[in-house]
Amino acid sequence: MKIAVDAMGGDRAPQVVVDGVVMALEEYKNIEIILVGKMDKVEKLIAGRVSDPARLTLLNAEEVIEMHETPAVACMKKKDSSIMVAASLMKNRKVEAVISAGNTGAVACAHFLEVGRLKGISRPALAALIPSARGMSVLIDVGANVDCKPKHLYQFAIMGSVYSEYILKVDKPRVGLLSIGEEESKGNELAFSTMKLLKENTHINFIGNVEGRDIVNGRADVIVCDGFLGNVVVKFGESIAEMVFRLLKEEIMKKTRYKLAAALMKPVFRGLKKKVDYEEYGGAPLL
Amino acid sequence: MKIAVDAMGGDRAPQVVVDGVVMALEEYKNIEIILVGKMDKVEKLIAGRVSDPARLTLLNAEEVIEMHETPAVACMKKKDSSIMVAASLMKNRKVEAVISAGNTGAVACAHFLEVGRLKGISRPALAALIPSARGMSVLIDVGANVDCKPKHLYQFAIMGSVYSEYILKVDKPRVGLLSIGEEESKGNELAFSTMKLLKENTHINFIGNVEGRDIVNGRADVIVCDGFLGNVVVKFGESIAEMVFRLLKEEIMKKTRYKLAAALMKPVFRGLKKKVDYEEYGGAPLL
Repeated sequence: MKIAVDAMGGDRAPQVVVDGVVMALEEYKNIEIILVGKMDKVEKLIAGRVSDPARLTLLNAEEVIEMHETPAVACMKKKDSSIMVAASLMKNRKVEAVISAGNTGAVACAHFLEVGRLKGISRPALAALIPSARGMSVLIDVGANVDCKPKHLYQFAIMGSVYSEYILKVDKPRVGLLSIGEEESKGNELAFSTMKLLKENTHINFIGNVEGRDIVNGRADVIVCDGFLGNVVVKFGESIAEMVFRLLKEEIMKKTRYKLAAALMKPVFRGLKKKVDYEEYGGAPLL
Repeated sequence: MKIAVDAMGGDRAPQVVVDGVVMALEEYKNIEIILVGKMDKVEKLIAGRVSDPARLTLLNAEEVIEMHETPAVACMKKKDSSIMVAASLMKNRKVEAVISAGNTGAVACAHFLEVGRLKGISRPALAALIPSARGMSVLIDVGANVDCKPKHLYQFAIMGSVYSEYILKVDKPRVGLLSIGEEESKGNELAFSTMKLLKENTHINFIGNVEGRDIVNGRADVIVCDGFLGNVVVKFGESIAEMVFRLLKEEIMKKTRYKLAAALMKPVFRGLKKKVDYEEYGGAPLL
């Protein structure tokens, strides 16, 4: 499998991206990587670190789309940015996947412009995989579309359902609309109009409204919302888990007895951290 | 202080409301309570349980606004509901506070209709007190207004700032607008327009956009969002904390050694639970 990796995306790029690429090439012998970005920076970081250089291609892209840039404007202006070049590799079928930790909106926009959309889909959406009480839930959209119309949410529901069924192997995925109450009378204008559309679709297993608490309790396999709400929810969830660990540590540090007991149950904390740590589930597919 | 309590609000009303009223009258000798609701149900639950009956008044209200009802319609139709009767007590200055665990929208709507608004405020908003790394943050709105215009969020910011300064005693409260990135370029249409209004107000200490992760890290003392987003965030946050405790317990139950160690540090878990448990911070003032 050939994968394009955006060397310039993320707060600690290109260093951590290069480190990740080195690790991935070592661990997965069946992948090839095209690393896209400013080669004057990347080359010296990766020099001599890859044991099988035949599986790595370095591709220069002179421009970088920064985190603060407006996606559409940046994509139109910076044709030679790592994100746009990676997207064009996908368009020309030079790669089967693109990975970027860069400006989320720009990644979505670049693929919208270069790769295009499936028939019937107005906009791509970003899906997050959320560990729930019953496996993995799909939260869609988590940031590609900040202002949505009912038809967009409707399409996200279909894409999320297909993803859950075919990639996560969930049988008849239960699709819920994120709202402020289970009752149909609860919601905002966007939710009410989306509800009408979703109720008419007999191809998906729509279960109605779900609430904030249902995101992690496994009531739905697919949870549909606009990208503004989804983005806030995902970042908030990450920080809550971090906060609980920080508070736990504070409490433990209060007494030697607690510290000793905590040492005895280190695997407990490690196991818990693995289950709730977003770094374990950080990637979000753009559907 | 005189307080009206809605006996019929919440999933386990009137039983838990009556229990709470009995406890409150016992613990706070300086309050008087007017308990409003269906007296055929309430009277037998409270009979003989209050040691100082002079501080309790029972007031019959024949109707109940259910959780699934549309707030405005229910308030107009059910004038003799416990929520509407409690709001009219407030209007006529018979009480200084109203407490309800009922339909949030109906509580907001009833007070909007009966008590009215402050000059310059279009809509009341519900504020949640969120435990953060630096004390208590105010998240506003968390459910009273599901569809908001920029001027509404602008007014919520002012009310939240005043509440933080005068009730929580925060000096120059930092007010943040909940969005999908710190940069001004990140947001949806509502956030962009609200940002413009907030930047022009020199009476509040506006610090710009904050993200989902900033809700609990103490970057802002007041976090402004529409009631749809705020409601999802609050319910999601509650469930994440619950999930972490559930997973922790699962891990501990795996080995006897862990169970023994956990027993040694029981106060640690109790301390943590107290800090993150929403039942400790459940009340939300309607501003």
